[in-house]
Amino acid sequence: MTEVIVRPLQEADEQEWRRLWKDYLAFYETELPESIYTLTWARLMSGLPHEYAGFLALRSGQPVGLAHYLFHRSCWLETNACYLQDLYAMPEVRGGGVGRALIEAVYRRAAEEGAQEVYWQTQEFNATARRLYDRVASQTSFIIYQKNL
Amino acid sequence: MTEVIVRPLQEADEQEWRRLWKDYLAFYETELPESIYTLTWARLMSGLPHEYAGFLALRSGQPVGLAHYLFHRSCWLETNACYLQDLYAMPEVRGGGVGRALIEAVYRRAAEEGAQEVYWQTQEFNATARRLYDRVASQTSFIIYQKNL
Amino acid sequence: MTEVIVRPLQEADEQEWRRLWKDYLAFYETELPESIYTLTWARLMSGLPHEYAGFLALRSGQPVGLAHYLFHRSCWLETNACYLQDLYAMPEVRGGGVGRALIEAVYRRAAEEGAQEVYWQTQEFNATARRLYDRVASQTSFIIYQKNL
Amino acid sequence: MTEVIVRPLQEADEQEWRRLWKDYLAFYETELPESIYTLTWARLMSGLPHEYAGFLALRSGQPVGLAHYLFHRSCWLETNACYLQDLYAMPEVRGGGVGRALIEAVYRRAAEEGAQEVYWQTQEFNATARRLYDRVASQTSFIIYQKNL
Repeated sequence: MTEVIVRPLQEADEQEWRRLWKDYLAFYETELPESIYTLTWARLMSGLPHEYAGFLALRSGQPVGLAHYLFHRSCWLETNACYLQDLYAMPEVRGGGVGRALIEAVYRRAAEEGAQEVYWQTQEFNATARRLYDRVASQTSFIIYQKNL
Repeated sequence: MTEVIVRPLQEADEQEWRRLWKDYLAFYETELPESIYTLTWARLMSGLPHEYAGFLALRSGQPVGLAHYLFHRSCWLETNACYLQDLYAMPEVRGGGVGRALIEAVYRRAAEEGAQEVYWQTQEFNATARRLYDRVASQTSFIIYQKNL
Repeated sequence: MTEVIVRPLQEADEQEWRRLWKDYLAFYETELPESIYTLTWARLMSGLPHEYAGFLALRSGQPVGLAHYLFHRSCWLETNACYLQDLYAMPEVRGGGVGRALIEAVYRRAAEEGAQEVYWQTQEFNATARRLYDRVASQTSFIIYQKNL
Repeated sequence: MTEVIVRPLQEADEQEWRRLWKDYLAFYETELPESIYTLTWARLMSGLPHEYAGFLALRSGQPVGLAHYLFHRSCWLETNACYLQDLYAMPEVRGGGVGRALIEAVYRRAAEEGAQEVYWQTQEFNATARRLYDRVASQTSFIIYQKNL
């Protein structure tokens, strides 16, 4: 299996990040305006503690995946929780350890911050993703309700 | 139906808040150390933008429910998302509009902040809660995976 | 077990029907305006083929449950499908065969009309109801999506 | 993205409709007798208020998808509900907006009729469909029970 390298997103990654994130959003039948790409990229690059940070996965030097994660408070914990909002591996590299490598990079980063838990959401019917998630984490009994204001 | 009043948590509410939150945690078969009560209360009272804030529900002047909510970034949105972590109504007042009043207070607060969405988690088998949630919000297809570090 | 009688709703049942249907709606955290009660009752009494019809269940002569059902077209079938929209048994009589008697009355009525199937919706977490439904019908793999216009 | 045109089914569409509907039914491992094709087509063409009506989706002038919808009574609503029974987009055009265009055409038609809701069923494990449905509508907590008479 070709080695997967995961490293923090850097300024020079913007074009590749845009391509990957766009593909990820298309998977969710979503298109976002240019203004969100610009804003989210600026936030990812800010290094501020309440902003998302990101990882890029590379195989043979090519960007093939990304992860966005956020540290935020929990009323139940002394330390922050780590929320993994976006995780993407290109379809061509699925099964090659890219998703797992990204998740494990987030685990390491969260542990460095003293976080005790990393969590994320996935659609219940996303069988491909869940085959991986069941290996690296545990399903909880929780589902999400949402209200759009 | 007796009127339900919802207002922000105040310093003087600490003992009632502790009682309600303890009951809520007991519902989840959870006990937390004294240090977490102290810390979470201090954070709730801090008024800082990255900390949880809370509401208290009163009926006939008696505290009967609480809600803890947090604003945090989303990569998909310009404005913050609002996460409702804890929602509790005493069993004696269930069906009397306390849960709904707390949720609607969070909606109003989130709208004031310019947030476009409020979301929360619930256990898929929590029938009592979900009968209410199905009325005031929409179930999504998302489930939660978690890794304890 | 006290015998359960199921018969079609009649004009004289209006007050009892209102009481039962109100309780049923409360179970779904729903209140409907007076105008809907009036309109739905008129439609139930109309006897027209595209309107709902209803059954009342009685125990010891007292109304204890109701069912509303509709025949409608299906593209897959020559004959109409029968949709059971509302089914209610008072909590005091649960486990006493009221729900089953109402469902079986709808089955008989549907068979008389030449319908090949009767179906209904229930919340996935409604354990009490599903214990009965698993006895008298089959869960399908279908879930409901909805858009409020 | 190639433009998608959605228009009501017309008499001249019969052969294309048969082809598309047959493919759709094959997706559900279903074959229906010739008599049902004849009957359902006649009903779709009847223009009667209690019959299904249909839309055809075209891309570059070629029929690539269809939708069948029905207005029927609801005990909970003054106006009719709109039930979308069948929705099909050819596999070759998936991800190209055909399903969404058909759903949105039904929304517009339902709104013209004064309907307040459009709903449909899908198998819980139909991941491809649900990724779209999660964008254009909301999953409810309802599942379907059925009895074949």
